[in-house]
Amino acid sequence: MKISRECIHCLARQAVEIAEEATSDVTMQEEIIKRSLKELGEMDFNETAPEIAFRMHQHAKKITGNNDPYKRLKEQYNEIAKEIYERITEEKWLDKAEDRFDMACRLAIAGNIIDFSVGLKLEHSDIVKSVEDSIKHDIFGTGTTALREAVGQSKNIMYIADNSGEIIFDKFLLENLPLDKVTYVVKGGPIVNDATMHDAISTGVVNLVKVIDNGHSAQGTILKDCSSTFRHEFDKADLIISKGQANFETLSDIKDKTIFYLLRAKCSSVAAAIGCNRMDYVLTSY
Amino acid sequence: MKISRECIHCLARQAVEIAEEATSDVTMQEEIIKRSLKELGEMDFNETAPEIAFRMHQHAKKITGNNDPYKRLKEQYNEIAKEIYERITEEKWLDKAEDRFDMACRLAIAGNIIDFSVGLKLEHSDIVKSVEDSIKHDIFGTGTTALREAVGQSKNIMYIADNSGEIIFDKFLLENLPLDKVTYVVKGGPIVNDATMHDAISTGVVNLVKVIDNGHSAQGTILKDCSSTFRHEFDKADLIISKGQANFETLSDIKDKTIFYLLRAKCSSVAAAIGCNRMDYVLTSY
Repeated sequence: MKISRECIHCLARQAVEIAEEATSDVTMQEEIIKRSLKELGEMDFNETAPEIAFRMHQHAKKITGNNDPYKRLKEQYNEIAKEIYERITEEKWLDKAEDRFDMACRLAIAGNIIDFSVGLKLEHSDIVKSVEDSIKHDIFGTGTTALREAVGQSKNIMYIADNSGEIIFDKFLLENLPLDKVTYVVKGGPIVNDATMHDAISTGVVNLVKVIDNGHSAQGTILKDCSSTFRHEFDKADLIISKGQANFETLSDIKDKTIFYLLRAKCSSVAAAIGCNRMDYVLTSY
Repeated sequence: MKISRECIHCLARQAVEIAEEATSDVTMQEEIIKRSLKELGEMDFNETAPEIAFRMHQHAKKITGNNDPYKRLKEQYNEIAKEIYERITEEKWLDKAEDRFDMACRLAIAGNIIDFSVGLKLEHSDIVKSVEDSIKHDIFGTGTTALREAVGQSKNIMYIADNSGEIIFDKFLLENLPLDKVTYVVKGGPIVNDATMHDAISTGVVNLVKVIDNGHSAQGTILKDCSSTFRHEFDKADLIISKGQANFETLSDIKDKTIFYLLRAKCSSVAAAIGCNRMDYVLTSY
């Protein structure tokens, strides 16, 4: 999905947010904002938004020397997600569900509300609401039955994670997949609140499933920039479960692969590309 | 008022709007967007937003050769405003008002809803609503009585206009000022929907009052870039009536002059600088 006209002011907003998250030094903030805006002015309209955002983040990292500005927030949201995960487990939502796999998908999608790039002011209550609404909300797209069938027919499943916090909700779905066939993928390095190996370890995802990183620290999956190890695994997979907007933005032009996208459509550009309404719960393949 | 952090993504949004209004040629649009974003990346954080926006618009004008992209829209909004003006006149709102001057101020402020830079999707009904609400809405600031007193004490009044369409609503207030003491100011050239001499003529404002232009085609009043003729008149004035956000943004650091600002606070940065709520009806001086 190429950058849309609407992405432009969203990226400009992110330039300010990146600067303010990376440092409290006003001079450095201003330098980050200006370099990011110039970077935005250098873009190629055939690029995806995560490619441009990556270069903006690189400026922030170079200028501040802070490689992981969202570290504290990531830990905080892992904690919040863990609390909610434990409540759902104690209350046996999956055991009580009419369709266990469907419920697991819904919760994995619900967790995608934890995204710091889309300009939402996220509160603890928003995550709880996303989870509670996920049970009753229509799922836009091919739906959970299609994914269940694809899983049944697959030998190598790649599950591409999105954000910290969110990865705890992925555990619900992972526990309902044939885990010996699944490779779970996190980012090769920190960017915004995207999950890295550190999160996979601290949340116990590594105890469930084989986890690898993609060798790159951009949002989404920019194949050309990922490690050869990752690309080998990607090529091998006959089913990709892709979480979140940025993975959709960077993978949606790939047409020769079975990819299921699970996400909350938090911005209007992604919603328009999918053909759904903003904030819809999406599970679809093309 | 210096550019705020929130102005940045608003200016990036305007970069896209400027491009799309100036031409339907996608390649040219992309060039305008990229040059505008680079221009934004070159900004000085001590500048005002209208100074930066001006340079962005210059790129659009140079690239397209279109000096007045909003011409059609300006004519359209002059027509809409004329219709509403005539209805208010026929229904004798001012004659029926308890306080004629207060009513005239409210209508002049109401007209400031006609602004194409602030990201509002403006409909005919929004203008009618702004006008109807202006009657009952609290006025934020020093209020109409303070302006009436200042008018009574002044010998040279400068009334700095803002947008086309809006200038028709200014007629209500102009008709309640000592017109022999008033100089009405429009822009020296087209920018967005700001009123120029063309609008002052087509709406009949020139038949009411002495009209001059400021010799520059930026939004607001960037004194250093205005003509010496304008600056001479500005220096001479003992009361400035300033309409709209951009005039506030570019004049609000001037402290040795009696300036009354009349506007709808359409963006959160201007509202924050004034200390009012977004969309408030403002009449204030400092």
